[in-house]
This record gives sequence, structure tokens and C-alpha cells, in this order.
Amino acid sequence: MNKIIDILKFDNKGLIPVVVQDYKDNTVLMVAYMNSEAVDKTLKTGIATYWSRSRSKLWVKGEQSGNIQKLKEFYYDCDKDCLLIKVTQVGVGAACHTGYRSCFFSKINLELINKTENILSECIGKKLFDPDQVYKKSC
Amino acid sequence: MNKIIDILKFDNKGLIPVVVQDYKDNTVLMVAYMNSEAVDKTLKTGIATYWSRSRSKLWVKGEQSGNIQKLKEFYYDCDKDCLLIKVTQVGVGAACHTGYRSCFFSKINLELINKTENILSECIGKKLFDPDQVYKKSC
Repeated sequence: MNKIIDILKFDNKGLIPVVVQDYKDNTVLMVAYMNSEAVDKTLKTGIATYWSRSRSKLWVKGEQSGNIQKLKEFYYDCDKDCLLIKVTQVGVGAACHTGYRSCFFSKINLELINKTENILSECIGKKLFDPDQVYKKSC
Repeated sequence: MNKIIDILKFDNKGLIPVVVQDYKDNTVLMVAYMNSEAVDKTLKTGIATYWSRSRSKLWVKGEQSGNIQKLKEFYYDCDKDCLLIKVTQVGVGAACHTGYRSCFFSKINLELINKTENILSECIGKKLFDPDQVYKKSC
């Protein structure tokens, strides 16, 4: 199992970014980070496991909410410093801890660029779960 | 135009990662980085502009190959520390400097995980252009 770890280029914190994409429709659900142990665990268990930069610990995505991610495909890029995984998002289909399907729910209105100095973003999608009911502490 | 810059959280090098997705079929083409100037230029010009970490300069994607990326949609994530843009890839449709459509052309064979210690990856897709003919220097 060492070879993939040897191939990948982790940054000076020992991390590599991971784009997480829905296996079925290619929606980008989130971007997270893995260290070598998280890469190893994800590959061996088939359950997406990341390094939480805010909590400084391994993080099995969905361990608290139940919304785990089953690994379907695993890619690395031409520079070997970024990963792309395709997953099946278990649960109500929400990957974001805010309750949205994707973390990228804030979309900038490009039609207003160059017309005003105020950037307007709109919230797309709808909340699939209430974070207050899923997590004990507020998100 | 300042507000988006104020909203986003750039890292300690002044950079933010950007997932670049094909507008039509949601293929993840590449992951690059922007500084605040690149964000500004991308929004104002509608042409994807990044910060090249290897060359330490602003980089209009496709400035040499002609394979520019036209900005169609622009998102930021829940933590405001990652961007997602959807683009139309001009040219032969290849975003990767190696000639492949996507930088993520190396796919790990998951069926062999836990069966052997050797990780096998396969090259998916086909080269859409010959880098030696597009770039003056070798890639």
C-alpha cells in the first residue's frame, strides 16, 4: 500500500487537496484534504476519510451525521499534488455540514460584474437537512 | 470589485484553490490557484486567470497554447477558502498541459486494493494534442 503514498506530493503540512465529486452526476460536493494516513484509510476501507485542518485529526466524513461517502473512483492529477475522488453520498445526499448538497452553494452573479462594484452572490440549491438537528453543537 | 476579495479567505501565501469544471458535462478539468489579482482579472475579463506557483506569476490559462477557458459560472464554498468555476474549454478541449482533456487522467484500480501492495493506476482518456508541438519547451 506504500506506493501510492510514495507517488503523491503532499504539501509542507503533509496534506494533499481532494476534490470530491458525486459518482452519478459529477456534482462537485466539496474539497477537503488528506494526509498519507487518510489516503491509506480511504483506499483500504472504501469510506472517504480526510484530515480535518480545523480539528487537526483524522475525519471519517459522516462519522457524526451518518452521511458517509462510499469511494467509487480515485484519481490523481498530472502533477501528483491533487486528488479527485468520486463517491456515493450516503444519507439525504448532502455533503456540506451546513445542510446543502454541495459546499459550493454560493454563486456569483456574473452579469453584474463590470456594472457595479458590489459583488452579488446568490444561494443556490436548498438545504437537505437542518444542521442543528444533526450536530450537537452549532455549525 | 473589492467585496469578493474581502469575502474570500486566501491562505498564508495569498492563494485560494480553484476547481475548474467543464460547463457542459461537469468533468473536473484541473485544480489551480488564484491570488486576489487573478480572481479580479478572471471576473473582469471572463477569461480564467490563475497564479502559477511554479513560475510565480499571473497565468492566463491558454496564453501560450491558445486553449483559454471562458468563464461561465463562479462559486465559492461554505468556508470561503475554495473556489469552483465552470468554464468552456476553448481549442481541442484539453485543459491539461500534457495534452489530456483533464489533469486527472490517472485512475487507481480499486479492485486490487487489499489484494496486493502494489497500487496500479491506469491512464484514462486519450491525448487531444501533442505538447511538443504546442509548447516550445518540453513539458
